[in-house]
Amino acid sequence: MNADIYEVVHRRRDVRAEFTGAPIPEDVLRRILTAAHAAPSVGLSQPWDFVLVADPAVRRAFYEHVQHERATFAATLTGADAERFARIKIDGVLESSLSIVVTYDPERGSPAVLGRHAIADAGLYSVCLAIQNLWLAATAEELGVGWVSFYREPYARRLLGIPDGIRPVAWLCVGPVTHLETTPDLERHGWRARRPLDAAIHHDRW
Amino acid sequence: MNADIYEVVHRRRDVRAEFTGAPIPEDVLRRILTAAHAAPSVGLSQPWDFVLVADPAVRRAFYEHVQHERATFAATLTGADAERFARIKIDGVLESSLSIVVTYDPERGSPAVLGRHAIADAGLYSVCLAIQNLWLAATAEELGVGWVSFYREPYARRLLGIPDGIRPVAWLCVGPVTHLETTPDLERHGWRARRPLDAAIHHDRW
Repeated sequence: MNADIYEVVHRRRDVRAEFTGAPIPEDVLRRILTAAHAAPSVGLSQPWDFVLVADPAVRRAFYEHVQHERATFAATLTGADAERFARIKIDGVLESSLSIVVTYDPERGSPAVLGRHAIADAGLYSVCLAIQNLWLAATAEELGVGWVSFYREPYARRLLGIPDGIRPVAWLCVGPVTHLETTPDLERHGWRARRPLDAAIHHDRW
Repeated sequence: MNADIYEVVHRRRDVRAEFTGAPIPEDVLRRILTAAHAAPSVGLSQPWDFVLVADPAVRRAFYEHVQHERATFAATLTGADAERFARIKIDGVLESSLSIVVTYDPERGSPAVLGRHAIADAGLYSVCLAIQNLWLAATAEELGVGWVSFYREPYARRLLGIPDGIRPVAWLCVGPVTHLETTPDLERHGWRARRPLDAAIHHDRW
C-alpha cells in the first residue's frame, strides 16, 4: 500500500467502469470509515452518518432511478455534447461491492453549533470534508470510489428510510478495482479539460 | 515530513492558538495548492478559486469583523455554555502567516454541468473536497490550518472584491505552528465530546 498523501491525492480518481465486484475486507472498511469520521466539523458537530448499502435489491432500485435521471439530463443536451455524453458511464452502482451513502443532520449539536450562526451551510461543508477523507483513505487501500450525483435527494431518502430533516449528501460506490485511470473520465472522453492551477490563484484581492 | 495518509488524517487539527507567524516557503505553498486543485469535482467543473491574503490591513479588517460576529454568537449563550465559550479562541487570522480564502463559482462549466442537474449543491460540495485536500497536505507539511466561520459572506465578498455570484466558502488561516494539539480544542475546553464511530454507521437502511 502506497499511502503517501501526495501520491494518493494525485492518484485518486472518480471511478465508474473499473470495479471488480470483489468484497471489501472488514478491517479495510473500518479504516476508511474511521478516517472519514476523523474529519474536522463545525463546532465539533460531526453531522455525518454512513449508510452502508450492500443489499442488491436496494442498489438495483437506485440504479434504475439513476438511469432515469441520466435520461433527464441527456434530454437537455444537443449536438456534440449529446454525442459525448452518450459515451460516458455515470455510475458503478451495480458493479461495485458496496454503496456508502453519507448524510447530513443539521440538528446534530443544535441549537448552539459553534461557528454556524453566520454560515448556515457550514455543517454541510463538514460532511464533504469527511467524504474526501474517506475517498483518499480508500484510494490508499487500492479501492476505487465513484460519487454518483444523478439522483434526487427525496428518492434516496425514501429508498433508505432516512428520517425527515436528514439530507443525503453523497452516494458513493466503493470497492476493489482493476486499476485507476491516470486521466479523469470526463477529460478522456473530451467532455471538459482541467483548468490550470494559476488561473485559480488570486493575490490579496480577487 | 511524515506523509502517511492515515497519520495525517488523524494528526490534523483545526488550529487557533499555535501559529508562529513564520512564512510559508513558496514550494510548500505550491504543493498544497496543487493538492487542493487535484480534488474531484462535479462534471470536472473545478469551481474553486484561492485568494491568498497576505496583506496585514486586509487581515486586520477581517479580524475585527470576526470579533463582532463572535460577540453576536456569545450573546445567544447563557450559563455554562457562555462560560465555556468565553475560554475558546475562534481564529488565528492575525497570528498565522497567510489566509487562503476558497470560493465557489456556480457558473464554471455551466449551463450543462454533468451531474449537477438534480443536485444544485454538488458544486459547493466539490469546493469542500478541495479544502480537505489542502488541509491534509498542509498537515503533512507541518503547517497548521484553521477554518474561521465567524463571518458573513457578503462582508468577505466586499472586503476581497469577489465578483457577484461567486461565493466565499472558507476563510482558512495557514502557517507554521509550534505543535498540533492531540485533542480538538472544543473537546479540551469541554464544549462538546466526539461521537463514537459506531453511532454513525447504518446497514442497508437508516
